[in-house]
Amino acid sequence: MATDTAAPSAPEPGYVRPEVDVPALKALLDGRYAEVRDLVRTNLVDYASILEEAEELSVDDYRERVREILVEMAATGQTGMGFPEEYGGGGDLGASIAAFETLAYGDLSVLVKAGVQFGLFGGAILQLGTERHHEAYLSDLIAGRLMGCFAMTETGHGSNVQALGTVATYDASTQEFVVTTTREDAVKDYIGNAAKHADVAVVFAQLEVGGESQGVHAFVVPIRDGGEPCPGVHLEDDGRKMGLNGVDNGRIRFEGVRVPRTALLNRFADVTPEGVYESSIENPNRRFFTMLGTLVQGRVCVGGGGINAAKVALAIATRYAVRRRQFEATSKDQEELLLDYGLHQRRLLPLIARTYALHFAQEAVALQLHDIFSGTQAPGEEDDQRRRELESRAAGTKALGTWHATRTIQECREACGGAGYLSVNRFAALKADTDVFTTFEGDNHVLMQLVAKGLLTDYASDFEDLDQLGTVRFVTGLAVETVIEKTSVHKLLERVRDLLPGGDEWDQEAGLLDPDYQLAMLRFREEHMLGGVARRLKRGIDQGMNPGAVFSRVQDHVIAAANAHVERLVLEAFVAKTRELDDGDLKVALNLLCDLFALSTIEADRAWFMEHGRLTVPRSKAISREIGGLCRKIRPLAVDLVDAWAVPPEMLRSPDLVG
Amino acid sequence: MATDTAAPSAPEPGYVRPEVDVPALKALLDGRYAEVRDLVRTNLVDYASILEEAEELSVDDYRERVREILVEMAATGQTGMGFPEEYGGGGDLGASIAAFETLAYGDLSVLVKAGVQFGLFGGAILQLGTERHHEAYLSDLIAGRLMGCFAMTETGHGSNVQALGTVATYDASTQEFVVTTTREDAVKDYIGNAAKHADVAVVFAQLEVGGESQGVHAFVVPIRDGGEPCPGVHLEDDGRKMGLNGVDNGRIRFEGVRVPRTALLNRFADVTPEGVYESSIENPNRRFFTMLGTLVQGRVCVGGGGINAAKVALAIATRYAVRRRQFEATSKDQEELLLDYGLHQRRLLPLIARTYALHFAQEAVALQLHDIFSGTQAPGEEDDQRRRELESRAAGTKALGTWHATRTIQECREACGGAGYLSVNRFAALKADTDVFTTFEGDNHVLMQLVAKGLLTDYASDFEDLDQLGTVRFVTGLAVETVIEKTSVHKLLERVRDLLPGGDEWDQEAGLLDPDYQLAMLRFREEHMLGGVARRLKRGIDQGMNPGAVFSRVQDHVIAAANAHVERLVLEAFVAKTRELDDGDLKVALNLLCDLFALSTIEADRAWFMEHGRLTVPRSKAISREIGGLCRKIRPLAVDLVDAWAVPPEMLRSPDLVG
Repeated sequence: MATDTAAPSAPEPGYVRPEVDVPALKALLDGRYAEVRDLVRTNLVDYASILEEAEELSVDDYRERVREILVEMAATGQTGMGFPEEYGGGGDLGASIAAFETLAYGDLSVLVKAGVQFGLFGGAILQLGTERHHEAYLSDLIAGRLMGCFAMTETGHGSNVQALGTVATYDASTQEFVVTTTREDAVKDYIGNAAKHADVAVVFAQLEVGGESQGVHAFVVPIRDGGEPCPGVHLEDDGRKMGLNGVDNGRIRFEGVRVPRTALLNRFADVTPEGVYESSIENPNRRFFTMLGTLVQGRVCVGGGGINAAKVALAIATRYAVRRRQFEATSKDQEELLLDYGLHQRRLLPLIARTYALHFAQEAVALQLHDIFSGTQAPGEEDDQRRRELESRAAGTKALGTWHATRTIQECREACGGAGYLSVNRFAALKADTDVFTTFEGDNHVLMQLVAKGLLTDYASDFEDLDQLGTVRFVTGLAVETVIEKTSVHKLLERVRDLLPGGDEWDQEAGLLDPDYQLAMLRFREEHMLGGVARRLKRGIDQGMNPGAVFSRVQDHVIAAANAHVERLVLEAFVAKTRELDDGDLKVALNLLCDLFALSTIEADRAWFMEHGRLTVPRSKAISREIGGLCRKIRPLAVDLVDAWAVPPEMLRSPDLVG
Repeated sequence: MATDTAAPSAPEPGYVRPEVDVPALKALLDGRYAEVRDLVRTNLVDYASILEEAEELSVDDYRERVREILVEMAATGQTGMGFPEEYGGGGDLGASIAAFETLAYGDLSVLVKAGVQFGLFGGAILQLGTERHHEAYLSDLIAGRLMGCFAMTETGHGSNVQALGTVATYDASTQEFVVTTTREDAVKDYIGNAAKHADVAVVFAQLEVGGESQGVHAFVVPIRDGGEPCPGVHLEDDGRKMGLNGVDNGRIRFEGVRVPRTALLNRFADVTPEGVYESSIENPNRRFFTMLGTLVQGRVCVGGGGINAAKVALAIATRYAVRRRQFEATSKDQEELLLDYGLHQRRLLPLIARTYALHFAQEAVALQLHDIFSGTQAPGEEDDQRRRELESRAAGTKALGTWHATRTIQECREACGGAGYLSVNRFAALKADTDVFTTFEGDNHVLMQLVAKGLLTDYASDFEDLDQLGTVRFVTGLAVETVIEKTSVHKLLERVRDLLPGGDEWDQEAGLLDPDYQLAMLRFREEHMLGGVARRLKRGIDQGMNPGAVFSRVQDHVIAAANAHVERLVLEAFVAKTRELDDGDLKVALNLLCDLFALSTIEADRAWFMEHGRLTVPRSKAISREIGGLCRKIRPLAVDLVDAWAVPPEMLRSPDLVG
């Protein structure tokens, strides 16, 4: 066993506490879209009363108030930034994501209703429709004059969207589609805007032409006229929910509802008047996933929203922890501040570090989306692989960001004790409203499987053909080495080892605070876990097991591999961000956070690293000690670090907690 | 390295799936108080409408309805079982705990208001008062004719109750106490029943007699008369909370409120008319903790309530998982049931196993409480050590049970997807209402430190003298070996090693499913962690650090040691329960659950076991495989296992989920 080179960093001689320049850090965090973010902050403050109204109003009135705010915000340009300028939009996708993320500092019903109206409904019209749909709907929906909904999920199918039970049959005699809910569990369900406000719906249904099914396509279907359901449309309210009660979720049942042929959102496929189905994409699976892929922005937005909601919780809990005292600990005369307790530091500071890490990872995925979707190439002509990597990254960041929100908000509530339980102190709404983030826009566990599939198949061009069974067959058809060598992490890992001392003993020789060491650890984990999944799949098949049963048995390894991948991307984003900074206090402070994120990520999975020969026992213990030392160094910076998120004080409420 | 004797248990030749006799298992779980539990189940069904009313009524009406139900339930004898028969009670403490636990299947505002009225308020009158108080209040409060509150917590002090700022000064000239809120942060806060319903309060205040402070004592203070605040009493509503909005929490400020000398609850201390302070317990700390100790029932009840709330969530999620299908996995013709996915099994089944484990641990602590408090000895004469062990065990079980509730309810919500987000499906209320369980009746982290202190000081007779600093000094005054040898786990561990094969290599040779192996692992962890805390404390002091700073730095180890202790007790309770069963299917089924609980507990902390030389890498991996195998065996039993909890279907609601 090599010598453990890591030393605890407690009061080391050379260390000087950095001064955090809060405005400079805010500018760094806000990045390219600082102005957009500040516009949203201002709008949030203007409508701050909604946070209290959310508690006091009836469900009906709360819904109306949220709609009003949405329409008024739309007039400021805040919600339409991602749409083409010719329809009154801002023509900047990245700006629209920045605006949405910032909106998550406020009432989350406003956020989600904005997501439904402008992201899901508007996004579908924009991305799946063609000029005739843009002309017909975009100006009105951007201004909030036309409210719509996105009717994909059904009672029986949320994750497995290809199995939807709503059918749209083409009737050539009238050149119409007939939309029908074929089964009880095919009712559209949980649809935002459906219970009350939407006049039209983008409906996802199995397209049948000439007796043949062409898979799921999207149609614009009017559902209300003058406030009343259109003929054949049955609407129902989903009723009260855990949170987000300012959004009117509902159910839609279609009973032979007729819409003209032009109602088909026909960017990727069309039906001729005579009833001939045409598409530029031959393979039906590929077509379906290409359509879905254009809607990736929704996932990116939800991930960013989750991360920002976590910031609100941390801002409150951190400020409380430097005001609240309990028990005499180090002094007989005065009780101790909560944040001076080692345990309290351990509870909050790694969450602050992870929030920073996710922030920069989210910035990276948002910019990636902006670049790909703002390209001048016609759709379908871009590099497919880049789009698929984006979709995978969006899925993974969404899952990690929203799980982080759930966990962080809970920890912060508990860290504020009984005071955290009062509604005035924000946690009630934060918890209830964000809870569904882990489920909507893709169930996190399903998304993580998507991530793993992409890695295992190297985003193979026929990836869209691969359902669960197909993935198993694809992987088991390759040598495990081939699966691994195809992954980008393999090359990264090879390269990084050259940077570290100790050759094959890099895991023993490198310093714990060397980012190349931290990256190498996460890359090693990812590569090894992917190989492990591939090996397990092959072994099961070789033993003659049902491929589905094999997959089911390996499923927790699949999720772990996906998590390893996404955490690696997150660390890379954080390291890249700190490396580009000029030397100075800001860089010192962010390096502390980056180290804390990296080491607490390794610590959380240290059993795995020990099991796989990459972490000795002394080094594992050294990492835990180092985390304690980092927490003590970050302790005096904590308030500045949360202040740099610039959550408007009005959004924190909590008068007695943050004072 | 010894041979890894553990084999994956997948389709092993001799295994026959047990048939679970649900009524027999229910009888086992309900135990001695089956009739009491069934009475409460019946009452819950009679008032099932409260679950919907909780969503529909205004806060005021909801509070009134909860009060009504409480009074009506009181008439059935359900809520008074713990009080003496001469005042209309049932004279059976164990029965009162069983009743309270079962009440947690229903609306939790009803539960918590019952806890406030009969547990906290009634319990304080009973335990801290003497005959004159019993005569004056018990009959009325048991019947719900007199509503009261328990005014201990202040805005500034919840955990550190010895530092309360409310003062009661004895005025010998009028033979009265004058109760005063001395500071802004000394207002009584979060007090259940205070905002609306309570006419009297048991107020905890610093007693001052003749200019000398005697520490915190309890007084009966009228706060309302005919619905109006009494003179000098200022009442405020805490407003809306995250959950439990059927309970009227509020604030109380006292401005020179005078109460007669007899208002002091004088079981442990009194003031003579002339103003002489008298107590049978000389040491003020000891006196204070003896008073608090008599209120231990509250913690036992909250722990049981949390465990039963978790059962409701698991009953819904498990039934949903055997109805809901998503994605074709093993068959092209039919989608797969959620519970047939390996990941879904991994998410839910260990939680079911832990719920069983905690159930039996809770039963043990409740019986222990019953035996100690039903003893015929006069107060103060019992074995102090037994009482302190009970207090420690109650604190630890409360912390684990309520954390388990928070985690389980969250996991179950996510496992039910978007459907889990609708209020009709119960998770909204379960999450919001139980969230504060980890905080009230003692913040879990503070309670776990209490547990650790008890272990470190071996419940020393002068334990009550020991605050945080005192504990550090006490421990550092002993040799580490002495600390360890004093613990009961030391003897247990010595003994159990004799039962295992392999001598010192027991951790390699014993079978993974041998309960003695599992117990030895948890006992080893506990002993070693305690020793580690003691060593770290000594080292810090030897280095000349401030004792408080040392403690702060060791705090996460303190919590870990306490957790190790409580989990060991939980496993012991589960193993003891299964061992006393006759051979048969029920025993087989419970052994599967017990194995799953034990191994997933070891797995969760496997990094620690590896770091401390008690788990080889192959054996660690074998444990994870075994857990997968156990999940597959338990899968077909899952519905029976949750049915045996006998949560009335009306309490599950979720018509579309459990159907």
